[in-house]
Amino acid sequence: MAGNTFGSLFKVTTWGESHGTALGAVIDGCPPGLDLTEEMIQEELERRRPGKGGATSPRSEPDKVQIMSGVFQPEGCRCQKTTGTPISLVIFNKDAHSKSYSHLQNVFRPGHGDMTYQAKYGIRDHRGGGRASARETAARVAAGAVASQLLRKYDMSVQAYTVALGGISTERRDLSMVAENRLFCPDNEAAERMEERVREVRRQGDTVGGVVEILASCLPGLGEPVFDKLDGELARALMSIGAVKGVEIGAGFKAAEMLGSENNDPISPVGFLGNNSGGILAGISNGEDLVIRVAVKPIPSIHKEQQSVNLLNEPVKIKVGGRHDISAIPRIIPVCEAMVRLTLADHLLRQLALQEGWGQVTGSE
Amino acid sequence: MAGNTFGSLFKVTTWGESHGTALGAVIDGCPPGLDLTEEMIQEELERRRPGKGGATSPRSEPDKVQIMSGVFQPEGCRCQKTTGTPISLVIFNKDAHSKSYSHLQNVFRPGHGDMTYQAKYGIRDHRGGGRASARETAARVAAGAVASQLLRKYDMSVQAYTVALGGISTERRDLSMVAENRLFCPDNEAAERMEERVREVRRQGDTVGGVVEILASCLPGLGEPVFDKLDGELARALMSIGAVKGVEIGAGFKAAEMLGSENNDPISPVGFLGNNSGGILAGISNGEDLVIRVAVKPIPSIHKEQQSVNLLNEPVKIKVGGRHDISAIPRIIPVCEAMVRLTLADHLLRQLALQEGWGQVTGSE
Amino acid sequence: MAGNTFGSLFKVTTWGESHGTALGAVIDGCPPGLDLTEEMIQEELERRRPGKGGATSPRSEPDKVQIMSGVFQPEGCRCQKTTGTPISLVIFNKDAHSKSYSHLQNVFRPGHGDMTYQAKYGIRDHRGGGRASARETAARVAAGAVASQLLRKYDMSVQAYTVALGGISTERRDLSMVAENRLFCPDNEAAERMEERVREVRRQGDTVGGVVEILASCLPGLGEPVFDKLDGELARALMSIGAVKGVEIGAGFKAAEMLGSENNDPISPVGFLGNNSGGILAGISNGEDLVIRVAVKPIPSIHKEQQSVNLLNEPVKIKVGGRHDISAIPRIIPVCEAMVRLTLADHLLRQLALQEGWGQVTGSE
Amino acid sequence: MAGNTFGSLFKVTTWGESHGTALGAVIDGCPPGLDLTEEMIQEELERRRPGKGGATSPRSEPDKVQIMSGVFQPEGCRCQKTTGTPISLVIFNKDAHSKSYSHLQNVFRPGHGDMTYQAKYGIRDHRGGGRASARETAARVAAGAVASQLLRKYDMSVQAYTVALGGISTERRDLSMVAENRLFCPDNEAAERMEERVREVRRQGDTVGGVVEILASCLPGLGEPVFDKLDGELARALMSIGAVKGVEIGAGFKAAEMLGSENNDPISPVGFLGNNSGGILAGISNGEDLVIRVAVKPIPSIHKEQQSVNLLNEPVKIKVGGRHDISAIPRIIPVCEAMVRLTLADHLLRQLALQEGWGQVTGSE
Repeated sequence: MAGNTFGSLFKVTTWGESHGTALGAVIDGCPPGLDLTEEMIQEELERRRPGKGGATSPRSEPDKVQIMSGVFQPEGCRCQKTTGTPISLVIFNKDAHSKSYSHLQNVFRPGHGDMTYQAKYGIRDHRGGGRASARETAARVAAGAVASQLLRKYDMSVQAYTVALGGISTERRDLSMVAENRLFCPDNEAAERMEERVREVRRQGDTVGGVVEILASCLPGLGEPVFDKLDGELARALMSIGAVKGVEIGAGFKAAEMLGSENNDPISPVGFLGNNSGGILAGISNGEDLVIRVAVKPIPSIHKEQQSVNLLNEPVKIKVGGRHDISAIPRIIPVCEAMVRLTLADHLLRQLALQEGWGQVTGSE
Repeated sequence: MAGNTFGSLFKVTTWGESHGTALGAVIDGCPPGLDLTEEMIQEELERRRPGKGGATSPRSEPDKVQIMSGVFQPEGCRCQKTTGTPISLVIFNKDAHSKSYSHLQNVFRPGHGDMTYQAKYGIRDHRGGGRASARETAARVAAGAVASQLLRKYDMSVQAYTVALGGISTERRDLSMVAENRLFCPDNEAAERMEERVREVRRQGDTVGGVVEILASCLPGLGEPVFDKLDGELARALMSIGAVKGVEIGAGFKAAEMLGSENNDPISPVGFLGNNSGGILAGISNGEDLVIRVAVKPIPSIHKEQQSVNLLNEPVKIKVGGRHDISAIPRIIPVCEAMVRLTLADHLLRQLALQEGWGQVTGSE
Repeated sequence: MAGNTFGSLFKVTTWGESHGTALGAVIDGCPPGLDLTEEMIQEELERRRPGKGGATSPRSEPDKVQIMSGVFQPEGCRCQKTTGTPISLVIFNKDAHSKSYSHLQNVFRPGHGDMTYQAKYGIRDHRGGGRASARETAARVAAGAVASQLLRKYDMSVQAYTVALGGISTERRDLSMVAENRLFCPDNEAAERMEERVREVRRQGDTVGGVVEILASCLPGLGEPVFDKLDGELARALMSIGAVKGVEIGAGFKAAEMLGSENNDPISPVGFLGNNSGGILAGISNGEDLVIRVAVKPIPSIHKEQQSVNLLNEPVKIKVGGRHDISAIPRIIPVCEAMVRLTLADHLLRQLALQEGWGQVTGSE
Repeated sequence: MAGNTFGSLFKVTTWGESHGTALGAVIDGCPPGLDLTEEMIQEELERRRPGKGGATSPRSEPDKVQIMSGVFQPEGCRCQKTTGTPISLVIFNKDAHSKSYSHLQNVFRPGHGDMTYQAKYGIRDHRGGGRASARETAARVAAGAVASQLLRKYDMSVQAYTVALGGISTERRDLSMVAENRLFCPDNEAAERMEERVREVRRQGDTVGGVVEILASCLPGLGEPVFDKLDGELARALMSIGAVKGVEIGAGFKAAEMLGSENNDPISPVGFLGNNSGGILAGISNGEDLVIRVAVKPIPSIHKEQQSVNLLNEPVKIKVGGRHDISAIPRIIPVCEAMVRLTLADHLLRQLALQEGWGQVTGSE
């Protein structure tokens, strides 16, 4: 079973290679009656565009989304609405420099999926990483914008931001600052030092990793024990982003060092006193904010010479040229948000199917 | 869509509450012709039994598994074999002290799923945590033993061990030591200090967390981009274990602090030089050992008084009595192994469906 | 992907062989809060017991169901209730005469799955047909009884009855008569002639087929275009019963001979004038009764000598002995009802997930 | 769970409305290495084009397919090949007369899905039937052409043809004649009488139904008991085509009137003697040709006045104008073939996943 579909009820299937004709997403299971226009989706796509942050490359792909199906504006409605039928989103590729990849046709770039795609499929579109390219995440962001429209109805929202980059960590989490710097960092001062670090590393022909934190407001009751627990589903969603190598919820790896009496969040009539759980208990949301952190590895495309092999398994020296980001941050930020949104939208529908009148039940708690 | 099924092709559905009649697993999709006896499964179950490690409680549940269907011994075969039909495994509950939980009927234990199960379902079996009990993992371990029989055919194996407990980390990874101490620790000396720490915490009526590492040998080519990447699937599998709050692959969170030139594993004709990737590139196994670490939170059932609320949302003081482990480690060790085995068995079948003659293709690389 | 799970949201997985230890079903996705006792399920099982109709064999399997998990009786509730966790149902096999099948170990019975199971799996439990036995349907009936509890909440009900047997068709559909004869026939006089025909065929060592009609009251809006249309889903559900070789909806094959002006059901403010559609338009229920008919082939186990081959593909003459029904009717009647109930329960939950407040929307039509 | 995806391993998701921007299909799970060009798909699409048969309307939609992703031509290969990544197919709508439908905005056409879509979704794109239009099947035919490339590798093929139309049945099945008449009829003489009948009905402003038979050569061992039996899956696949109201396998409804001794197909060392089973025993293919027949209802769009209601549930008289086919036959022929191909391709991959070395096992029988 191939893996290009995400979600059980709010189902998204993405397709497309970095240097193919287009890429896109089909959303099946979006409830009818939600407002949805191309502008709403475009707005999200703009946030992951190259050139938006100091750590990104200057590729100027317009990433213009088109809605091909699944919406309709009935007479008398002010906005186009979803109809409950599949929503097909297409983004045509424009600025694809295929030729700059021809020298990579027969060699495997370290840290990339070249070798594993070859092992898995026995054939691969080598141009720009093909399906393994980060460009694929544009389709996720577009789909996530549709999920947003559903979450909004339930007053649920998601925000991601940078908490570490190139070894520099934020000292504060002032969310009002996130929109004030190019790195989506909740600490303007740390952001400046991060930018400085990025410039330095760029000069060395190298790249850096970092940590992204995602915060989401979430109704209680979402998550499906025992295998589709909300934390597990979020972990899978985020780990499915190419650069992510670790996921932790709430206290995360710190919890491993705590005592039970420290880690347990006491409960009071007005809510939990503490959030070491990250908003999830026994795989089900508890009404507190979801708190998730992901480890982002450095971009594997570096300008330094590396040791590798070719298709004939002969040793080669390789130097990856072309335009590349220095870090997956900040462009990964809207991708993280999209994956969390898609996960929450899916679990929202799953809970609606399970528990008719669920809103009332949870409300009465 | 409820979440009690794991896997797409090697599909496991578990059922059962801590203090119900029985618990079990149904495996649908296990290939025919594999040797399978109750003894093979029982052997794995013994490894997660209470009383096996210093950090566990003395509950003496026999956990005797019965195979109800899906196997048959044809004339002339020396061993019972799987038939390709569903394998039903049942473990009857014997030593269930339901009464000791009646005082918890109307209150929510901090750190447990009591409140979230109530919010989600509007009803819950409060006895021993019901479906949210760690006892549910017995069914996973039983199912994992079946997956083992499939992996064995492909020379794939999985081993988990403790690398930190109660704030004490191992200094070595000598896998020959894992079987020599009760904590499945690859460092006998660290294991002793961990046991000492556990005794100390037990006296305080408190509990501890830790870190488990899982190592797996794995054929290249497993994992299904872009959403069912092998690392994402492993993360979900492991995060679906109650006590797990974080998962990292290979260098994991350390990768966030590394440069691209440090993090990339160079490739040579005899394999990768380094394993920061943890055996997975672009979501597909690369033939190196899989390396995964999970953060295990402290057991939430502590003997100290805690602040909580009851069903009427009135404040209460609560002290969880009864027999409880001090740490989910070591009993979580075979559970981690089971979840990784189930994940690999599933992806093995997924790859066989995708790529007829896949063995040859990868062999020719 | 193995096929022992039915349904997307109301998911049933069955397991068990005819002569194994037990058979059973796990229901995952049943909403919490429904009344459910073993007696409710047992009542349905009694309807498919051998010896209930003149066309059945005298095997006296008690078919006693046990609920292993997924129910709980909270303090103050008069009835045990579903909890939203998996409901495991087990029926132990008692009256299994395995020895009477040993002579069939190496030969393929015509009309049975012996040869195809061997071709598919390369191994098979030959005793009593193993997994291919009609005995497997006991698990379906048990699961269908759980679905009934959900449908009842929405005033939906399902009834099946015999409309042809051994070449004799009913001339009326008086549903009050269905409970009055052993063949579940809505025409007592036809039932008598059918019984006479069955006795005659029994004397000849032969078997007969027939036609079953299923009538279901159903809310409008169920069914998921374009591939999971309600008629398609019902067809699959019913065709998955061993003896069924044809399914038609509403006018069915007669529609192929009609003009558009004859076949279209006119619409009036009080509903449809006619029901050639069988209650389904464009794959979605329209509020009229669902009407489905299935063709039931004669039982393949006959007492006459037949031509076949053995495992070595050598020609053999075979005479299937033992106790066998003369027709799958009437025991197939509750199985048909169960499959329709499971289908409707699943689509009910699917619609709830799609359309929050759906009841109101359809109500306003 | 919405229903726009077909298949478990060879998964097809279709999208698009009759009068939207475009329609398309995404195929996820197609094995890598198959030859695939736009021309191969286009060829199949041409067979379902309007104007191809006497019973069709003159709408001249070019139905030009584009492959957006999932194929690549490696250096040195003579043909573009599938890569194992999702194959996205898009067909832009050109000749859409939306205005001709504006008078149908608020009324429900009898025999159509207008009313049920409204009941289900609370909103609908009324133009040309929206998602319920037969135009949606173009995406199925395109996807089926991809499945063809997989089946070809295993020497499996599918052919459909008309066996009844407007009350006229064929008297022979000479498959060499199928390509010789516009109705895909294996009896040229019957085809002439059918054409005459169609002309007559057209003059009356009415429409006709018919029966299509599908013949497929199929390896033994396909089909997944007990719920995803091959006959059940084929029934669902075919019943998911708008006009189909009945499906039968092999002897089908005739089997209901036969004795066991007549219906059982004897087995000989060179194969089955007879094919009442239609090539399927116990839900698994037995190596004989699959034989399936479907009942096709008359097109509901007739030029005669009909009784209906509007959105306010007031009675209205309605006369559906515009260009319409007189029968779904012959355009439904390639759609039936496509659905059977998609089903077989899916079950082929499912069997490969279940039974490594399956070809050999079945070969040794």
